[in-house]
Order: sequence, then structure tokens, then C-alpha cells
Amino acid sequence: MLSETITLRAPTPSDRGAWNALWTAYLDYYETVLPKAAHDTAFEQLLSSDPATFNGRIAWKDAVPVGLVHWVHHPHMWRPEGTCYLQDLFTVPSVRGQGVGRSLIEVVYADADARGAPSVYWLTQEFNYAGRMLYDRIGERTPFIRYNRPARTDRLQ
Amino acid sequence: MLSETITLRAPTPSDRGAWNALWTAYLDYYETVLPKAAHDTAFEQLLSSDPATFNGRIAWKDAVPVGLVHWVHHPHMWRPEGTCYLQDLFTVPSVRGQGVGRSLIEVVYADADARGAPSVYWLTQEFNYAGRMLYDRIGERTPFIRYNRPARTDRLQ
Amino acid sequence: MLSETITLRAPTPSDRGAWNALWTAYLDYYETVLPKAAHDTAFEQLLSSDPATFNGRIAWKDAVPVGLVHWVHHPHMWRPEGTCYLQDLFTVPSVRGQGVGRSLIEVVYADADARGAPSVYWLTQEFNYAGRMLYDRIGERTPFIRYNRPARTDRLQ
Amino acid sequence: MLSETITLRAPTPSDRGAWNALWTAYLDYYETVLPKAAHDTAFEQLLSSDPATFNGRIAWKDAVPVGLVHWVHHPHMWRPEGTCYLQDLFTVPSVRGQGVGRSLIEVVYADADARGAPSVYWLTQEFNYAGRMLYDRIGERTPFIRYNRPARTDRLQ
Repeated sequence: MLSETITLRAPTPSDRGAWNALWTAYLDYYETVLPKAAHDTAFEQLLSSDPATFNGRIAWKDAVPVGLVHWVHHPHMWRPEGTCYLQDLFTVPSVRGQGVGRSLIEVVYADADARGAPSVYWLTQEFNYAGRMLYDRIGERTPFIRYNRPARTDRLQ
Repeated sequence: MLSETITLRAPTPSDRGAWNALWTAYLDYYETVLPKAAHDTAFEQLLSSDPATFNGRIAWKDAVPVGLVHWVHHPHMWRPEGTCYLQDLFTVPSVRGQGVGRSLIEVVYADADARGAPSVYWLTQEFNYAGRMLYDRIGERTPFIRYNRPARTDRLQ
Repeated sequence: MLSETITLRAPTPSDRGAWNALWTAYLDYYETVLPKAAHDTAFEQLLSSDPATFNGRIAWKDAVPVGLVHWVHHPHMWRPEGTCYLQDLFTVPSVRGQGVGRSLIEVVYADADARGAPSVYWLTQEFNYAGRMLYDRIGERTPFIRYNRPARTDRLQ
Repeated sequence: MLSETITLRAPTPSDRGAWNALWTAYLDYYETVLPKAAHDTAFEQLLSSDPATFNGRIAWKDAVPVGLVHWVHHPHMWRPEGTCYLQDLFTVPSVRGQGVGRSLIEVVYADADARGAPSVYWLTQEFNYAGRMLYDRIGERTPFIRYNRPARTDRLQ
């Protein structure tokens, strides 16, 4: 369904600027700013061939970066083959509704299948209405909600 | 606060029977039955010294196993140090309200601190009222909800 | 903000056909079909001058009915002046995003003020994303969820 | 199931002190204090024979007031016979788990049946775990959530 002008590619070192622009826009949505060192470490994970670190794809419309997805495989006690956590998904507003988000998720599904660990999950804010319109079509809502350790109990934070 | 008769210990090979009884009771709560091979792999992870696999503790009341917790560290794109996913927590009904669950969570917090990756999260069903009474005291509810890849899209399932 | 071509009017007997079309489309969203007698009673409430029955407005774009709202005042134990329940809100897809829904809600707010009972509430499905995009701007989400008596305990149903 | 020592009675004028103590304890749960005039008007509704105002019951354990329920019938556009809103339910901590709450709800169900308007609904905070343990047994959770008009838009408040 994707327009022929949209391509999805794993990031390479020369994509650092493009990735950084998308990543910053995504973090803006969560009103989050990360130090440069965190950007460095995140991008290194995407370039790494270590199967335990994050994978990613950048969506390009012709020469313009328009979306990203990041995912990681981790062990799971219920599933000997492990599971896949799709942590970050973003598309720029100008391409929304064109199937870019869906295609990025489908890359993750395909990678999970290729690893023999097909279960994939992600978390989203209950009030992320635009995202959930897509997720309800391509995923299944569960009754699980997330709790965090309170920051005040972290000795290091 | 814990009674002196409660002790928390990492599982050893001789704890397989005790762990299995707790794990099966926990899975019952989720109306889940796993094949023996999945139990085997799960228990091997708990015994492994590989920092990328699951860790666990069993709570004992004198010689009786009364609770368990499992957690795993995994990479996180926002946090160069990674994060900690507390996947499974269980206490037998006869000890509820005695601080066993809280103590099991605090072991995870301490391990996260020791690794220099203090953030910890877990997922629970919205209607797990008894669990949430504890989690609201020791954690922070977030607005994040979980979506799963639908089983029908898994080629392997 | 409303286009000059949008007008909001209380229903009159000659509006029965227009109202019925909107009401049926609204009920379709909830996959609900009501018998004709229920339509009759509902419309009679809108025409009634009894302050204890429902009030309504129909939104017109030129001569085309494009939206409706229904509300009722009822006693409230915490508020001697009572409260206002906005039960039904609907706009046809072709006018969405043009401020019709907001204007219909504002009529209810104004009526509540005029009665000296300014509190207004409404209920919506958690997954009514399009509606909630509006409601988050013009209302406040509360942590209250609705429970119903199960149909099986109704002697009459 | 109710102990023979529990009785449910409609309030009479001489019950004002008993009702007031329960009502104040209930409002405390919501961190709410109401002026005396609001208590007066609320209690008058309970004594009134007007079918459009609130009804109530007080639960007594021997001579001690241990619970209350308030409900009101109001019109409903989908149901010609109207509906019943169970607004307030409270039991004192010392009797919880003894069936008092359930019995108070069942009085409302019976009154709804007697009026020929058997549908009953109520709202509760998502995190009212103790209440929901009961409501899940005697009611059905719906996906409806409540929105309020923001206080800042009330001209009178």
C-alpha cells in the first residue's frame, strides 16, 4: 500500500543527522530532552550487529526522512524464544495517514518472525488517540497498564 | 518490616520443585499452562550468570516457598544504562498482606541500583486490584497501556 | 468560530424527520436500533416544556441537519441546584472539525448557567478517540468509570 | 446472606443525625466538605415523596448506622421508561465484606424493577479497588468514562 516513493532502510553512519532530527521530534512529543551522550549511545545501538541491542528503520520519502521505528528482542520467562519490544515509533505529521507507521510496524513483525520469536508488544499513552487509531487496526489492546518505580526511590537519580 | 521467618534467596538447582510450584500457581492466575520445555528454559535463565537473562528470588517462610519474583535488564533507547523489567511477581494467598510482595520488589530495586540502571517497570492488568493496592504504594501508575501483535499475524503461531 | 451558515435550533414538530435521521445515525454508531415507540417518546421529550425532561438542539448547515445534542437536568445529592447530564452528541462526518460539536456543547453549558446549575457531565467510550480529542479541549476527563446493572438481573428485560 | 442483625430502612426525620454521620464519612473519602445547606437539601430529598428526587436507605446493625445508598430516577433518551442512577454508596469499614454494600445495591435494583425501569448505573473511580471488587460481582463494567465541564467555564462558580 505504501507509495513507491517511501522506502524503509536500516540506519547507516551517514544517517546520523536524519535520524537525530526524527528522534528529537519524537522526544518532543514526550516533552523530553536527552543529553548528547544518550543520542550517541542510542544511535550506536542501531548500528551495532549485536542481536541483544536495538534495531531500527528510517522511512524516507525520496530524500526526506519521514519516520522511524526502534525495537529490541529480550528474554521472556513465558516464551523460551523471547519476545520483541517495539519501543519507539514516529512519523512526521506531513505523511500521517499514508501507511508509513503501519509499514514500520510490519518491518518489526517480519524481523520477529525471522528470529523465530514472533510475539511483539509496545506501550502507548492511553490518550494517544492518533496512535491508537492505527494500533487498534494492526495490534490488540490488552488490559495491561504500566507501573514505574518512583524516581524518589532511585539512589542514582 | 518482614517477619524474621521470611527469607529471600536466589534459586539454586535444588529449588526446582519449590520454584515450579510457585510458577505454576502464578500461571494459573493468568489461566496459562506452559509446556515442560518452557519451564526448563525459564528455570535455566534464573540459574544462569549471564547478565542478559532473567534473575529471580524465591521467598521462603521457614522451609515453605511463599513467593517469587523474576526480572530482566534490557537496553533502552532513552537510557544509555538500560532499564529493568520486573516481569513476574507472585505470593501465595496465605502470606498476603505481610510485606512479602513489597520485599520481593525491593530486591529488584536494589539490583537495579547495583547495576547503575535504577529504572524499573512492570505491567499489570488494570483489574488486578489486590496487586495495584501494593503497586500504588511502591510504584507509580503511568498512562501507558500495552498493545500486542495479534496472534493471527504471527507466521509461526 | 462557527461558520455563519451553521445555526443551532431547538427542535419543533416539523423537525421530526430531520431529527430522526440524525438520531438513527447516532444510534448506528452504538450499533443500536430502537423501536419506533422509543423514537416517539424521545422526540416528545425534546418538544416538552417540562424542565425535568430532555432538551435538545439540532445543528443546521443551511437547510441540512448536521448535528444534535440532548441533555437533561437531574437532582444531585452533592449539589442542591442539581446537575446537567449531556447524554447524546452527534455530528455528521461531513462537518467534523468545523466546530459544530463544540457549539452544541456550549449551548448546554449556557443552559446550565441560565438554570443556576452550571455543572455538566457526559460519558463516552474510552476508545472514542475522535470525540475525546474534542472533549479534552472543552471538558475535563475524570477517573470515573461506569458500571451497569447486568441485564440478567433485570426482571423486566 | 445478610446477618439478621442488619436492617435496611428508608430514612425518617429522626435519622438525620445517623445519616449525617454516614454522609460525612462518605464525603471524606472524596476529600469533600459540603455546606450545611447542601446537607439539608440532600436529606430533604430523601424524605420527599416526589418520585423525581433522590431515594435512600440506611443500613443499621442493631442500633448502629453502618451504610447508606442514594439513587434517583431520571429520563433517558434511549429508554422511554427512564433509568436509575445510583449516586452514592457507603459502608463503614467495620462491616465491609459482610454483604451490606451488596444488599444496599439490591434495594436499588428492586426499586428499579418496581418502577418498570430496571436499568441501573453508577460511576466509580477507576482506582476504587475495594468498591470494584464488589461491583465486578454485582454489576458490569462498561468502557464509558466520565468527562466534566471544567469549573473555569462555569460563570456561576
